[in-house]
Amino acid sequence: MTAVMVTGGMGVIGSLISRELVAQGTRTIVFGRHEDRTLIKRIADSIQIITGNILDLQHLLRIIQTNKVQRIIHAAACLSQQAQKEPFNGFQINVDGTVNVLEAARLTGIERVVFASSKAVYQRPTGKHAHPACEPITEDYPKEPDTVYGASKLFGEYMGLNYLKIYGLDFVALRFGSTYSYGKLTGRHGFAGIPAMIENAARGEPTRIPHRGDRKDDMVYSKDAARAAVLACFADNPRSRIYHIGTGKGTSLSDLAAVLKKCFPKAVIEFGQGPDASDRGRHFIFDIRRAQVELGYKPQYDLEAGVRDYIAEMTEAGG
Amino acid sequence: MTAVMVTGGMGVIGSLISRELVAQGTRTIVFGRHEDRTLIKRIADSIQIITGNILDLQHLLRIIQTNKVQRIIHAAACLSQQAQKEPFNGFQINVDGTVNVLEAARLTGIERVVFASSKAVYQRPTGKHAHPACEPITEDYPKEPDTVYGASKLFGEYMGLNYLKIYGLDFVALRFGSTYSYGKLTGRHGFAGIPAMIENAARGEPTRIPHRGDRKDDMVYSKDAARAAVLACFADNPRSRIYHIGTGKGTSLSDLAAVLKKCFPKAVIEFGQGPDASDRGRHFIFDIRRAQVELGYKPQYDLEAGVRDYIAEMTEAGG
Repeated sequence: MTAVMVTGGMGVIGSLISRELVAQGTRTIVFGRHEDRTLIKRIADSIQIITGNILDLQHLLRIIQTNKVQRIIHAAACLSQQAQKEPFNGFQINVDGTVNVLEAARLTGIERVVFASSKAVYQRPTGKHAHPACEPITEDYPKEPDTVYGASKLFGEYMGLNYLKIYGLDFVALRFGSTYSYGKLTGRHGFAGIPAMIENAARGEPTRIPHRGDRKDDMVYSKDAARAAVLACFADNPRSRIYHIGTGKGTSLSDLAAVLKKCFPKAVIEFGQGPDASDRGRHFIFDIRRAQVELGYKPQYDLEAGVRDYIAEMTEAGG
Repeated sequence: MTAVMVTGGMGVIGSLISRELVAQGTRTIVFGRHEDRTLIKRIADSIQIITGNILDLQHLLRIIQTNKVQRIIHAAACLSQQAQKEPFNGFQINVDGTVNVLEAARLTGIERVVFASSKAVYQRPTGKHAHPACEPITEDYPKEPDTVYGASKLFGEYMGLNYLKIYGLDFVALRFGSTYSYGKLTGRHGFAGIPAMIENAARGEPTRIPHRGDRKDDMVYSKDAARAAVLACFADNPRSRIYHIGTGKGTSLSDLAAVLKKCFPKAVIEFGQGPDASDRGRHFIFDIRRAQVELGYKPQYDLEAGVRDYIAEMTEAGG
């Protein structure tokens, strides 16, 4: 039985990765800064939970060796808003932490490292890729990160590709689109428009957004992202190494409002006429064909299925 | 009198930066891993030499405060070939070291940080920018570093721009073209075609290069690069923040051979017919107009002047 360690494995996406691994019968080691079972309650008895600081290379080495870890899915990160508030700290977690994982992996002969990267490696789309045409971008779209988080993720990809080239370390990076799932609002990911809309609707509270809701983005349910990470962890020949993980389709906040009104007929969701916040945002539709062909990835949640599952998770958690 | 600290200030380019600062009457603090006066003999009595590890943030803070440093030119780096051999070590010096400088600078209220970046942030040129047309590239040319060194330099730029945006830290980065000057062969920079050709010719030894010599590159004499760093350190409004430092002109190894035969009529320099090594290389002509306009930069050494000064420096050093 393969042993996989998930860094950040108690976080929003990390916990879903851990759950997917357990569901597939994989021996799962969950590594996190603090023990927080909120999102991994249902698998807590089936996994090994280890707390530690990813900046401590010696500790990482010991954990890997003691637990006979064979593959690593590296999902631990300081999130974007936090990294922009505390760039030095964000840099350490996202860059030093990632390079520590790579170095520990090559020193211990780890079979593969999967790295959770992000759409933040890109700047705003332009031309035909921007609103309203929103043509999907491929992984070759120019990278111009303008945040600490985005620059850190891009550097993590570059270092991984160099570890592959220099040492033969098997490295794969997934650039996630705009993921949504239960947990993002509960202290972990700061303000997030999509979760706020969903949770307000579920609780019978109104949502009023000052801008228009017509900008399309690639909103992917986190369970699809998590399954992609597990596919990437075991794929036979991930030769392109860098993959977009999204839906390949454009979804707007107005689309989300329509789905929420279907689920909760009394939901009050109002948009204003101000410029869409996404005028300044990083709204892309991802071309996901590379992941489909090489990883066997196929999103299983359309928007309505994602929303309904979100609410089921929220209800189960007592949220 | 402004106090400027030069990290890597005893290295090949760093020593020329230190000399230029001293020549301008600036109080100069030279920071290096080891004390090595080889390239700073003539200014050793005019500067403060401090040894230390750039990875030690607390030490950096103490040096800055004790010496009342006001501006920093950050030229310390693990060079490309070395970083590719030892990626973890190269990463620490180039990335952790640079972020330490930025963090120390913002904590101590440093007035400006100038960062020595590199053409290594780019991959090989394509289309009209490639051989034989070799149209100059601007600073907006797509960045696709494929080495640890190049990725580290690019990340340093991104972090600097974020420190500017977040904290207002005054940050400028210079992307140097293919610099050449005395010192690169003496154990510091590994094999370097240009210095080898020059030093062989000066010593009456032949140079035989297996490939053609017709690929053009932007070869800039390191004293021009060093003066650019000092200009960038004091420029009134370096609003573009990122600048190409080269000559703006294409120079081939055949051009260099012609100059060397003029300086040393008996020089033997032979080229073969194999594919030019630069087919795989990063040979660019830099558009330098941004540096000319915003920094007042103007290269003062054409190829012959650079070669003659190189030989004068070599002779003085007893090389």
